[in-house]
Amino acid sequence: MSNRTTKTDPGRFFEDFQLGEAIVHATPRTVTAGDVALYTALYGPRSAVQSSDAFAKALGYPAAPVDDLLVFHIVFGKTVPDISLNAVANLGYAEGRFLRPVFPGDTLSTTSEVIGLKQTSAGDAGIVYVRSIGRNQHGEAVLSYVRWVLVRKRQPRTPAHAERVPELAKAVQPGVLDASCPPLALAAYDNALAGSPFRWGDYAVSERIDHVDGMTVEEAEHQLATRLYQNTAKVHFDAHAARDSRFGKRLIYGGHVISLARALSFNGLGNAFHITAINGGRHVAPLFAGDTVYAWSEVLASAELPGRSDVGALRLRLVATKNRPCSDHPLKQGEEYDPSVILDFDYWALLPR
Amino acid sequence: MSNRTTKTDPGRFFEDFQLGEAIVHATPRTVTAGDVALYTALYGPRSAVQSSDAFAKALGYPAAPVDDLLVFHIVFGKTVPDISLNAVANLGYAEGRFLRPVFPGDTLSTTSEVIGLKQTSAGDAGIVYVRSIGRNQHGEAVLSYVRWVLVRKRQPRTPAHAERVPELAKAVQPGVLDASCPPLALAAYDNALAGSPFRWGDYAVSERIDHVDGMTVEEAEHQLATRLYQNTAKVHFDAHAARDSRFGKRLIYGGHVISLARALSFNGLGNAFHITAINGGRHVAPLFAGDTVYAWSEVLASAELPGRSDVGALRLRLVATKNRPCSDHPLKQGEEYDPSVILDFDYWALLPR
Amino acid sequence: MSNRTTKTDPGRFFEDFQLGEAIVHATPRTVTAGDVALYTALYGPRSAVQSSDAFAKALGYPAAPVDDLLVFHIVFGKTVPDISLNAVANLGYAEGRFLRPVFPGDTLSTTSEVIGLKQTSAGDAGIVYVRSIGRNQHGEAVLSYVRWVLVRKRQPRTPAHAERVPELAKAVQPGVLDASCPPLALAAYDNALAGSPFRWGDYAVSERIDHVDGMTVEEAEHQLATRLYQNTAKVHFDAHAARDSRFGKRLIYGGHVISLARALSFNGLGNAFHITAINGGRHVAPLFAGDTVYAWSEVLASAELPGRSDVGALRLRLVATKNRPCSDHPLKQGEEYDPSVILDFDYWALLPR
Repeated sequence: MSNRTTKTDPGRFFEDFQLGEAIVHATPRTVTAGDVALYTALYGPRSAVQSSDAFAKALGYPAAPVDDLLVFHIVFGKTVPDISLNAVANLGYAEGRFLRPVFPGDTLSTTSEVIGLKQTSAGDAGIVYVRSIGRNQHGEAVLSYVRWVLVRKRQPRTPAHAERVPELAKAVQPGVLDASCPPLALAAYDNALAGSPFRWGDYAVSERIDHVDGMTVEEAEHQLATRLYQNTAKVHFDAHAARDSRFGKRLIYGGHVISLARALSFNGLGNAFHITAINGGRHVAPLFAGDTVYAWSEVLASAELPGRSDVGALRLRLVATKNRPCSDHPLKQGEEYDPSVILDFDYWALLPR
Repeated sequence: MSNRTTKTDPGRFFEDFQLGEAIVHATPRTVTAGDVALYTALYGPRSAVQSSDAFAKALGYPAAPVDDLLVFHIVFGKTVPDISLNAVANLGYAEGRFLRPVFPGDTLSTTSEVIGLKQTSAGDAGIVYVRSIGRNQHGEAVLSYVRWVLVRKRQPRTPAHAERVPELAKAVQPGVLDASCPPLALAAYDNALAGSPFRWGDYAVSERIDHVDGMTVEEAEHQLATRLYQNTAKVHFDAHAARDSRFGKRLIYGGHVISLARALSFNGLGNAFHITAINGGRHVAPLFAGDTVYAWSEVLASAELPGRSDVGALRLRLVATKNRPCSDHPLKQGEEYDPSVILDFDYWALLPR
Repeated sequence: MSNRTTKTDPGRFFEDFQLGEAIVHATPRTVTAGDVALYTALYGPRSAVQSSDAFAKALGYPAAPVDDLLVFHIVFGKTVPDISLNAVANLGYAEGRFLRPVFPGDTLSTTSEVIGLKQTSAGDAGIVYVRSIGRNQHGEAVLSYVRWVLVRKRQPRTPAHAERVPELAKAVQPGVLDASCPPLALAAYDNALAGSPFRWGDYAVSERIDHVDGMTVEEAEHQLATRLYQNTAKVHFDAHAARDSRFGKRLIYGGHVISLARALSFNGLGNAFHITAINGGRHVAPLFAGDTVYAWSEVLASAELPGRSDVGALRLRLVATKNRPCSDHPLKQGEEYDPSVILDFDYWALLPR
């Protein structure tokens, strides 16, 4: 008996999602020093807090915490087989909050709740909104975020779901920002070792920073990364099938771009050691192997954190381009994005005061 | 004094092997969380048992065991400098048995016994049969398997060895199958976390499963993998020399294909969490960088395990192709393999009941 | 306010260095089993001492030490943002001494002292000599070396520094060679597991060894390596900018070549388990992705170590070529290097007696 359809997971179509449904995603994952080393090799992050146990311990961490975006990618990767295997596009993120640091040895798992559904006017697809929560082995939430994706329908003519579009915050408000880091023994925060003399108070709202350096991406690199995150989206791996696709080649996982841009931003934001919230993000255009990524940042806002005198928060717009340096901070041409822009990412970072 | 011949290892030729000879292979290797992370990045395995310490511990393991094929590749890699540096072809495997789980921190070493020798009729090469055993730091066998390779002679006209072709089992018999896993606390085996609702009893003999997804291989990927296994076969690494070879380019280590196909087979065999025996395997055709690997499986047999009510075994035929999806389960055209087929692998996997 | 110049590190120019100045480099780095696994995957080293905790412990190490060149690259990488971001060329190394073994879990940091400055006659650049010291988390020096680089001036017409060219030893003298390894329990040194029957006494001065094997390098590989070392030199990563450069493509980090050649040298120098000193090194020509690296060695000297009857030292010249095998030991054509030569490296290795 041949029954591919019953044993192989075809992924969910728009009709398969129910409002309020809770989804337990597969493959819990113990994060290790091996993952951290690979993350370093893939992007070249240089923040002392994540790089050095000694530096992190002196500040008050029990060990160097895992890079926030590595946590994000692992938590996100688990959702792909259930949420976005049949996705046409990843439309956006909101209300992302890092709630607790993750250390090597912690095991991450992810659950999602369907919080919104909206069929397209064409009737052949729909937008699925999910709130996903990553938890450690103690059941403690380490990351929570909302994303919405455009998912194909199995059959164009099935009736539409009752429509519900959730109200999402345009940005995580400073008043609810969680430090998600232990109280820092600031006397131990050595600017020379950290690589930057600029603390939280040295950045001004509307300041723009060109991160100068460029990083060219190879097929092997983004494939290694995306498999490390156990993200199974076919478009990243199958060059044979991609030949007949819109772009004719493999697409690079959008999260790879976020990590590249974040690592490049060390040059200018060296003390922005921790992402505490993701306000939103848009993958403006696809990245392909052979392209070179550049980045620049704008300080959108600056905020104190409730009850914390050790760290302050900067709301940052991180823009990545391809094959175009960012000394003039390219963003929009009129209503449209500059053709070089591939990422427009909005997040809160913590810096020592 | 220049004496390349005495200091550099030229590899053994057919004349150098003695029937019954025991060979201690070089470079014991401590397997670490770093190797596990690289294995994940190279193939994207998603089995919860190997991915999560928490999941594995709940089942009764002391920690997440190392992927069986990573153990195989490391044990195998050590044999290359002594057995197959001058090999023309890797002809087959038999009687492979995984005997004990391996955990990060264990140190693996390999010994081999020459169990068969047969000169070719042309007289310029011969088949060498070896039984190789991988052991951990306590001297306990973790893997045993037979392979046979065609090895060049140093001089075509030397007399032939006394011929001996060993009798090898066509398959490891269910009665001697070793679970090589601790008794599982099945109540802790969560199908949702494992990623598949199908247990051992849900598979029927002769059932065929297309694993759907495809994975394109890059030069950097297979080189990283093969070096990780300390496998020194030149054909995988030297593009300069390969230009004058039969194929004109680097060949990908056959074990890389096995690992890719096994990882792809998660989609349809998500609960086949452990390879307990390798019955045989044939590298039907070579794989090159740029090719895309697909895979499908057939259930050849199903067996209970002596004394075990927690797990059952499936004998699986795992077929990998290149540049051709497997929805119609390509295998043979008459007597010959379909030109797309690159691997025909026969193994026993364990699944929870 | 847009102030790229104040927040982004433009790197130092020749004018910015002061004789005697001490520089604390950024980003302390905890070395882990993940780094070791990546190093294995990138180069394929096979020395049992670094590969096996069991082998190393039997000899007297507390665990398998980290490969010496991995330590070198990490210590070196930290100096790049401060020393060589605006370097035209990396001119040489001297007085390199490995002073203590490094183990997974150790945290490395680097400081440098400016020990020499010499403006070029053209006046648009200058040579900067620095002595860099890598230390572990206890403040103990693990590596010390001198390098000199040609650094651009910010403005060609600024006055020259007072010139000082340091006197550097042509080689580390045997009398001051530090074993930088614990006393070895030689009875536990198993030649079969180590992979070579040749001990220190088996090598003769002026002996030449072709290491036979070749290794082709991919862009993804050297980028992964160089980021792993947190080395930020732009020339290795930015293919877009490189199009307008002298070579039109990315340059491979010179240290990548040293590690490749050293790993290849296992075939002929299998028991040279530890680099204890670097006498000098010259990157004769650049390496690019797609090139194949070969290597050969010459024994320049042999020395006993003060107070040590377990190990002896060989002074070795390690020559790497590209796209040309080394059976005839290519080096010079008259005064000039053979066009295939890319590395001429001079170091002291330890071998068991």
